[in-house]
Amino acid sequence: MSGVNGELAAIETIRRGLPPSPAGETWIGDDAAVVAGPAGSSLLLAADAVVEGVHFDLDLVDAADVGWKALAVNVSDIAAMGGRPLHALVTVVGASAFMIEGLVRGLAEAAAAYDCAIVGGDLSSGPCLVVSVAITGTTGEREAVLRSKAQPGDLLFVTGTLGRSAAGLRTLRAHAGLAARAPADLDGEAQPAGGPTAAPELAAAYRRPVARVMEGLAASASGATAMIDISDGLGIDLDRLATASGVGVVLDVVPTAEGATRDEALAGGEDYELVFAARDPGAVARAFEAARLRPPIRIGACVPDPTLRRIGAELLAVSGWEHSLK
Amino acid sequence: MSGVNGELAAIETIRRGLPPSPAGETWIGDDAAVVAGPAGSSLLLAADAVVEGVHFDLDLVDAADVGWKALAVNVSDIAAMGGRPLHALVTVVGASAFMIEGLVRGLAEAAAAYDCAIVGGDLSSGPCLVVSVAITGTTGEREAVLRSKAQPGDLLFVTGTLGRSAAGLRTLRAHAGLAARAPADLDGEAQPAGGPTAAPELAAAYRRPVARVMEGLAASASGATAMIDISDGLGIDLDRLATASGVGVVLDVVPTAEGATRDEALAGGEDYELVFAARDPGAVARAFEAARLRPPIRIGACVPDPTLRRIGAELLAVSGWEHSLK
Repeated sequence: MSGVNGELAAIETIRRGLPPSPAGETWIGDDAAVVAGPAGSSLLLAADAVVEGVHFDLDLVDAADVGWKALAVNVSDIAAMGGRPLHALVTVVGASAFMIEGLVRGLAEAAAAYDCAIVGGDLSSGPCLVVSVAITGTTGEREAVLRSKAQPGDLLFVTGTLGRSAAGLRTLRAHAGLAARAPADLDGEAQPAGGPTAAPELAAAYRRPVARVMEGLAASASGATAMIDISDGLGIDLDRLATASGVGVVLDVVPTAEGATRDEALAGGEDYELVFAARDPGAVARAFEAARLRPPIRIGACVPDPTLRRIGAELLAVSGWEHSLK
Repeated sequence: MSGVNGELAAIETIRRGLPPSPAGETWIGDDAAVVAGPAGSSLLLAADAVVEGVHFDLDLVDAADVGWKALAVNVSDIAAMGGRPLHALVTVVGASAFMIEGLVRGLAEAAAAYDCAIVGGDLSSGPCLVVSVAITGTTGEREAVLRSKAQPGDLLFVTGTLGRSAAGLRTLRAHAGLAARAPADLDGEAQPAGGPTAAPELAAAYRRPVARVMEGLAASASGATAMIDISDGLGIDLDRLATASGVGVVLDVVPTAEGATRDEALAGGEDYELVFAARDPGAVARAFEAARLRPPIRIGACVPDPTLRRIGAELLAVSGWEHSLK
């Protein structure tokens, strides 16, 4: 579903057509579902597909990159709940034997990196290439961090600078001699002079996104009230968190990665950093330090007016990539 | 992956590329994976996709049928382990708004029928229509029934007559004026004179397959040593069970549904009845009676020679539909 309206309408159709979640569970509407598993356990469940021509272009990435990304974006959904991944199921449609070999290599690398076992799946012929991953996870003894519990006065943090992935895609496209992607919401701002040394790192951010599992655990330990991963862009993902929580958000900084434009940081998407709300900045700093993680960047705060979306005096544009059921 | 060799080669690539399952867990190679979940629980996990042009044809079925089938075939994988379904994640690629409405209706009907909560998923645009479902399940206090524990001397049972789905597809195609499907292994045997009253029931078997959850639980309770669902055809699925268990199989009957040919019963696939091995026919009869289920049909026995695949004096053809990673 490209386009905010098409996707929202489709999700509304799905919500209306399915029963709502019972008390104590969270189904559709967060990065992962929180459900009661067997033996009194609590389980995180999520699924995300990557589709050739929509989420990746085999002129710019190879099959192993696609495999890595298909798993990493699902791990990111678990990380955004303050959980760690357990198992993944992988469904591959429309891949050649050669493609399968590459996909499996990338999947296995991500599975090893995130300690997430690939335990099964399905393989089918088909007229287009789709890699669909479903994942389970756990928050252990802690509660899952939903999107919906931020309070006015909570501070907002992001686990790293943004725009690296979009800038990486731009440099890969320039390198491949392809037309640059120009979303309608980007205003033709001049591109930063990314030195030749910056490009490989940016390209890697696009080809091999990193899921912030340890950061999500640290945020949860520090009392995060709400959290989401930045898959579609800071503007749109922060809007989702604010809307789910019934708060407004005011940012005072756009944490822009070196080599990326401010618009790439705000609307580029696919950075997979986590943005979270928390009350106590000291507890946040201590939890990240205890886990030997780079401290998160404080970008703003939640405010009482639930309609407010601002960066300083500017309106925060609520747009970006729209392609997933969240 | 159409064709036995293509699929086997692809699965071999996947097996080689991924770590093996640890002791006490079963990953790739059964109807569902058996894994350790949170809080000491045991969890069943499976995934299966249906692809337009491969698994369904929108000239013959509607979107709600596709939604039903996408969930039912996954529930069947859980049933084949002696489990009951818990949660499903649904990923839809390439569906129009109208199609999504129908899919959700069929998914919701199956979810209600099998008491399986649809808790999340993903929605994406794409150049072809794919509905990918992942499912969790539990066997409660019992062990999962694998494919691999049948012993020589065990009797073989099937939970219902076969060929109904393939016969339904044949009648739907004849009705639609399309060329009849003629797999290479079907020998041009005359079609049975299916009366006009038989056709709707056969068509329903194809459009809305039934997962045998209660039967799987009864089989497990009666001491089934191995079980599999008949997704690809009795010949090929029984061969999988025999190969995994290291036994031979000799059938003395082909349980053919009214209106279906013997070849449709043997190789048609998509019946989703369960075939299982068990030692004690009295225990099987009692367990099915206690659950108020139609008694399963005894079709043969497991034998010591692991290479034997026979129906009476005939060879059991190990062929059928090949499109899933099992």
